[in-house]
Amino acid sequence: MSKLISITEAAEFLATHDKYTVLTHAHPDGDTLGSGFALVSALRSLGKKANVFCPDPIPHKFDYLTAEGQQEFTPETVISVDVADDKLLGCLQGEYKEKVSLAIDHHSTNVGFAERLYLEGDSAAAAECVYRVIKEMGAKVTPFIASCLYTGLATDTGCFKFSNTTPRTHIFAAELMQYGADYDEINRVMFEVKTQSRLEMERRVLNGIEYICDGRCAIVTVTQAMIKETGCDSSDMDGIAAMSRQIEGVQIGITVREKADGRWKISLRTFEPYDAAAICQNFGGGGHKRAAGCEFETEAEAKEKLKAYITSIM
Amino acid sequence: MSKLISITEAAEFLATHDKYTVLTHAHPDGDTLGSGFALVSALRSLGKKANVFCPDPIPHKFDYLTAEGQQEFTPETVISVDVADDKLLGCLQGEYKEKVSLAIDHHSTNVGFAERLYLEGDSAAAAECVYRVIKEMGAKVTPFIASCLYTGLATDTGCFKFSNTTPRTHIFAAELMQYGADYDEINRVMFEVKTQSRLEMERRVLNGIEYICDGRCAIVTVTQAMIKETGCDSSDMDGIAAMSRQIEGVQIGITVREKADGRWKISLRTFEPYDAAAICQNFGGGGHKRAAGCEFETEAEAKEKLKAYITSIM
Repeated sequence: MSKLISITEAAEFLATHDKYTVLTHAHPDGDTLGSGFALVSALRSLGKKANVFCPDPIPHKFDYLTAEGQQEFTPETVISVDVADDKLLGCLQGEYKEKVSLAIDHHSTNVGFAERLYLEGDSAAAAECVYRVIKEMGAKVTPFIASCLYTGLATDTGCFKFSNTTPRTHIFAAELMQYGADYDEINRVMFEVKTQSRLEMERRVLNGIEYICDGRCAIVTVTQAMIKETGCDSSDMDGIAAMSRQIEGVQIGITVREKADGRWKISLRTFEPYDAAAICQNFGGGGHKRAAGCEFETEAEAKEKLKAYITSIM
Repeated sequence: MSKLISITEAAEFLATHDKYTVLTHAHPDGDTLGSGFALVSALRSLGKKANVFCPDPIPHKFDYLTAEGQQEFTPETVISVDVADDKLLGCLQGEYKEKVSLAIDHHSTNVGFAERLYLEGDSAAAAECVYRVIKEMGAKVTPFIASCLYTGLATDTGCFKFSNTTPRTHIFAAELMQYGADYDEINRVMFEVKTQSRLEMERRVLNGIEYICDGRCAIVTVTQAMIKETGCDSSDMDGIAAMSRQIEGVQIGITVREKADGRWKISLRTFEPYDAAAICQNFGGGGHKRAAGCEFETEAEAKEKLKAYITSIM
């Protein structure tokens, strides 16, 4: 298990070491990347060498985070940001899982793979923790660092929409805007822009949407052919599974998705009084009250059995 | 013209009058309604009689703002919130345009129709001004008032996404959360939930989307038949016109919309280096560099002429 350390100890650790590799998690999102590039920029401003190292390619929409480039040096100290479990290091797990000297994280579920852990379980984003560490180190918050951290705050909270947002998240956002975060352009790129592939996927999903029980249950279908023909990547698919439960009046939203192995994965989201886990348990699956899943061999079997069961309880 | 008054004078006016009618603008949005119901609740808590009066039916998604009901009394004093021009009073214009004793607003373009005007031109939302007025009056910010004001802040800024958001907007949001605003449920209803009519409109719009110039120009079409057949109301149509310019790689986004009178209204949105006003001036229209419009007699004429011109300049 990691040794839990305070913010003062985290800042002191960073001040007394050098030549940093800052690891992000695999399938990187705005929070792990924003946190990583902000920390690296702050460390460099204090005369340290530092690079971000991401297990997967960085999606193009985050190009602005990489503006300060990579440095040449032989790494000595490994840090991770927003990594709750060494499994999330993806292809870097084997090489790095035992070498992380300090993890900075906001997941209270952090498994403690690093030697030291600076954890803020009440922060909406890892960027909140990194922001506080940067200030504790006495580094200047430049407009670039502010933009990196704002990206983390905004993406992990759905632009301050989700229930993980706290008053402190808003106060940090206000401060980062004052430090020069390019917030409106960041929000445009993160929340407004959609690829043509994504729009084509939405079109096909909407064309195939099915309602049962007077519109109280909606079923959305995503096939491997749809993914292949539209050219969607995983970041284009973000939020597609949520479409069925965002429809007014829908109490049970179902996404039926063909997996790469040909089996069919069901994601079920419910509102009161329906228990998603209880429904999925009938079909060998499980999960939580509001979100659960199960699997079937074929699309026809999945839809037939789900529709019959849901019609019987609604 | 209105007499411009300070926040102290606005609070003093409200303290020394009674029996308030608080007018919102027509086609009400979250800001005018949230501001109105918050102000009414605060006035009542100080022993005053007060009701919100809205020129149009209040869309159902705002039902939670009306929870405190209407009072019985003979009105004496008329206030408006978020109303920049007496024309925006809609069907109430004739009756009220000369009777508004105090306008509270954040539009620096306010035409000055009221006797007194408390204006904060740098506020993202009228709710910011009303929040400050409520505190100046010494009223308690209840969870209900906080939810009303949060609704105004969030809806007028696209949930803190748009460039009108300021650090102060975030600080107020943090304070309103601390006062008990039901922010995650409000955000779900305002930004996540879509009606079946809206989804059906999106489906039809996506089915008809046209790209020209290698996807650098996208054309979206909305007909009266689509509006009628989907059953969309004006609040369902919010954001439909923006769809064409949210597509990655699109530099000119065009919405071609059939008006009730059968003519075709073109809305054009551009990114650098294209000048929307210059394009629309060719067809007798005009506007701003990034957003402009013009009209045509028929859909065929609109599309033919626009496509030919845009192909020639791209």
